[in-house]
Amino acid sequence: MSLTGHCLPTVWKRFSSTAATTTIVTKAIPSKRHHHKPLPDSAFPQGYALTGLHCGVKKKPELLDLAVILSTSPRPTSAAACFTRNAFKAAPVIVSQEVLQRTGGRARAVVVNSGCANAVTGKQGMEDAWAMARETDSLFPNPPSTSETLIMSTGVIGQTLPIAKVLAGIRTQGVGKERTLGSTFEAWERAARAFMTTDTFPKLRARSFTINGKEYRMAGMDKGAGMIHPDMGPPAPASTGQLHATLLGCILTDAAISPRSLQSALNYAVDRSFNSISVDGDMSTNDTIIVLANGAATAADEAEIDEERDPVAYETFKQELTSFAADLAKLVVRDGEGATKFVTVTVEGAPTYEDAHRVASRISTSALVKTALFGEDANWGRILAATGSIPLSAPLDPTRVNVSFIPADGTAPLPLLVSGEPEKVDEVRAKEIISQEDLEIKVELGIGSESAQYWTCDFSYEYVRINGDYRT
Amino acid sequence: MSLTGHCLPTVWKRFSSTAATTTIVTKAIPSKRHHHKPLPDSAFPQGYALTGLHCGVKKKPELLDLAVILSTSPRPTSAAACFTRNAFKAAPVIVSQEVLQRTGGRARAVVVNSGCANAVTGKQGMEDAWAMARETDSLFPNPPSTSETLIMSTGVIGQTLPIAKVLAGIRTQGVGKERTLGSTFEAWERAARAFMTTDTFPKLRARSFTINGKEYRMAGMDKGAGMIHPDMGPPAPASTGQLHATLLGCILTDAAISPRSLQSALNYAVDRSFNSISVDGDMSTNDTIIVLANGAATAADEAEIDEERDPVAYETFKQELTSFAADLAKLVVRDGEGATKFVTVTVEGAPTYEDAHRVASRISTSALVKTALFGEDANWGRILAATGSIPLSAPLDPTRVNVSFIPADGTAPLPLLVSGEPEKVDEVRAKEIISQEDLEIKVELGIGSESAQYWTCDFSYEYVRINGDYRT
Repeated sequence: MSLTGHCLPTVWKRFSSTAATTTIVTKAIPSKRHHHKPLPDSAFPQGYALTGLHCGVKKKPELLDLAVILSTSPRPTSAAACFTRNAFKAAPVIVSQEVLQRTGGRARAVVVNSGCANAVTGKQGMEDAWAMARETDSLFPNPPSTSETLIMSTGVIGQTLPIAKVLAGIRTQGVGKERTLGSTFEAWERAARAFMTTDTFPKLRARSFTINGKEYRMAGMDKGAGMIHPDMGPPAPASTGQLHATLLGCILTDAAISPRSLQSALNYAVDRSFNSISVDGDMSTNDTIIVLANGAATAADEAEIDEERDPVAYETFKQELTSFAADLAKLVVRDGEGATKFVTVTVEGAPTYEDAHRVASRISTSALVKTALFGEDANWGRILAATGSIPLSAPLDPTRVNVSFIPADGTAPLPLLVSGEPEKVDEVRAKEIISQEDLEIKVELGIGSESAQYWTCDFSYEYVRINGDYRT
Repeated sequence: MSLTGHCLPTVWKRFSSTAATTTIVTKAIPSKRHHHKPLPDSAFPQGYALTGLHCGVKKKPELLDLAVILSTSPRPTSAAACFTRNAFKAAPVIVSQEVLQRTGGRARAVVVNSGCANAVTGKQGMEDAWAMARETDSLFPNPPSTSETLIMSTGVIGQTLPIAKVLAGIRTQGVGKERTLGSTFEAWERAARAFMTTDTFPKLRARSFTINGKEYRMAGMDKGAGMIHPDMGPPAPASTGQLHATLLGCILTDAAISPRSLQSALNYAVDRSFNSISVDGDMSTNDTIIVLANGAATAADEAEIDEERDPVAYETFKQELTSFAADLAKLVVRDGEGATKFVTVTVEGAPTYEDAHRVASRISTSALVKTALFGEDANWGRILAATGSIPLSAPLDPTRVNVSFIPADGTAPLPLLVSGEPEKVDEVRAKEIISQEDLEIKVELGIGSESAQYWTCDFSYEYVRINGDYRT
């Protein structure tokens, strides 16, 4: 749970009984220099009050473990979410799905705890999740009869929440001197910190955008470092079930958009952002991305953006949301457990988007490709083997396939395979490119015009150490 | 290429420029004590002459790199094979497919080289593969006009074979004093050794079986340690293309069985053996399993076993082949790169065999499950998350799922999850079970009656070291 501890070299002690000692000289993990810069308060969307606090789920009092996010806009707030497609869904996932179904896509609050995933916790877990929602509802001067709070939990599985502590923590944000809810940069940052588990830095970003000549803002935070290979879709009929936690994200905007169009834009955005990242190829059971649109920057008499009524405005919003979600998603890969590389996998020339996405996913999860990246080895054979292992909707013609490395520094690409034939690779140049922290692998299939991108990291000793030793 | 070197602890030197030094106490890799025991010559099937020799593909003269296997039976020899489904197929795969198609499932010889995969080698690679086939054909007193030789290659990719050396090596097995072809245990072992690349021990097994009161023999060898996650099917229409190498296997029997039934039995066997193992989840492009049935132990006037004419005899043969193939397949997992554990994943209660097989495959390839196994951590949450990430043909009901560890020493199983609820696990007992080299993970889905098994290994520092450093 330490915020920085896990990226430091450590002596592996557990296997001393059957052990042989060996000295391994490892690469240093790159500094987590993707921490956000300070931002002016005005960079954030209007009409939100946030906080992050320590309520006692985590042991160390300096670690935040509870975020409360309220919309204070006078307009109705639209809400949309994508949830893990895992058959085992944690209690907060099931409850949040039900809230959205009951309200028809309206929600005014988000409550998030870290340190405990409230997963595989049976009936008690469901009761606890509903209690969190109701307690958060009661922070509003006019609490709704049907809950308008969405919930996310992340952390240890198979343990019930210390629910009294969590509810007491939420209660501090009612009227009184303990209340820390605010709309400053500091309030946003505290909320982002309360999302963290094994993350080494809080993940917070903000941007502004223009629709029909008017400026709006979008800000968001997310968390995740391991068990990262999300596959999320819109709310599905609730089923009982439960499990672990990893990717959580929350995006807030002061634009006004109808619930249906917000969900539609989010589905598109999530496919091209959070559903296109992988740290270890393992899909979690708590993965959740929530977006709220409170219309606080929209005039009271102005209609919500809607896909059918104003397709141009909708398209602009959808593209902004997609690009912003991709920024947040990439931060998770930057902070991937044990990662020393940030790798973009681009697949072009595919018959369909799904084909391109599946090939990019396979390359991004290949243990052989990922260990070669860690070893800084331009091993195009492993990239090709991964590419060929995925059945496509049209047959692959090996003689049309190109593979190249695109350097992050803007210098010339390095072809590795052209029309299925290996290039005489300049190994010094290859080493120069692959030793940079950022790298793009480009695969051209030559059998169509669709493309997809995926973001992944390498597989290091650190990854094995972190995940061989997680519960101890 | 060293036969034993890669399983020894080594100092990692490559990253000294950007390096931080840390001492990691690693587990010793278990001794490769699955090396075969000496067998009497009579344990092997009749009517085969084999050898293994050094022809010069590998640099070190003590390493064998060429195996020649001939059927000397007076009866026609049936041949069947399963080849990788990877879209990029190496030249030997394409040529072997074509030989089987031309002969209608008859072949009398197998020639195998290690040290070079003859993959991504274009036209030259195809010419070299055909030359190997023709040279081997000419070892027969009555060389066929249409080739009856199947070919396998494994090793480095993107390099052409030193074909003159390979052909000269094959030629030594013609009439003359250099000829070493034989049918002794030693001849079989030399052939098995010539298959090896990063393998740490030769993989050779033999057994006898009875059909209609008559005894037959089956023997075989295989190789593989990394890039192991085969998906092989019967010969498909040939396409141009090429790549890497890993799982190769050859099974020889002195029973007589029709080509069509031999292929049918092999398809069934391969699904339940070689297509049910994983070391790293990466499918190779040279994967090939060949079976020859030469009828040398069958009377000249006796008909070949055939699925339609004698379904009982066919079923017996199919089950023997499946069980034998599973033995050979498990040896590859035992020798998995960096492996310290041998893990059987059993999935029961699935709606279909395919469902059970896909869930078992997902658990077997999960980086989080495999690192937990290396860390000897009874992390049932990761097993459950992997289980839930696979869409099945019927919906999963989390309240019906059981997960348990079955100890290798025959003591009582340890339930981890019963009806979707976590058990209060005795951590001392869990540690006792998981610290053994062999372990079975059993998942009961409770929604059907089909089951499947998969064999996998753990993910260790050694795996990262071997594959971050492969080409250097």
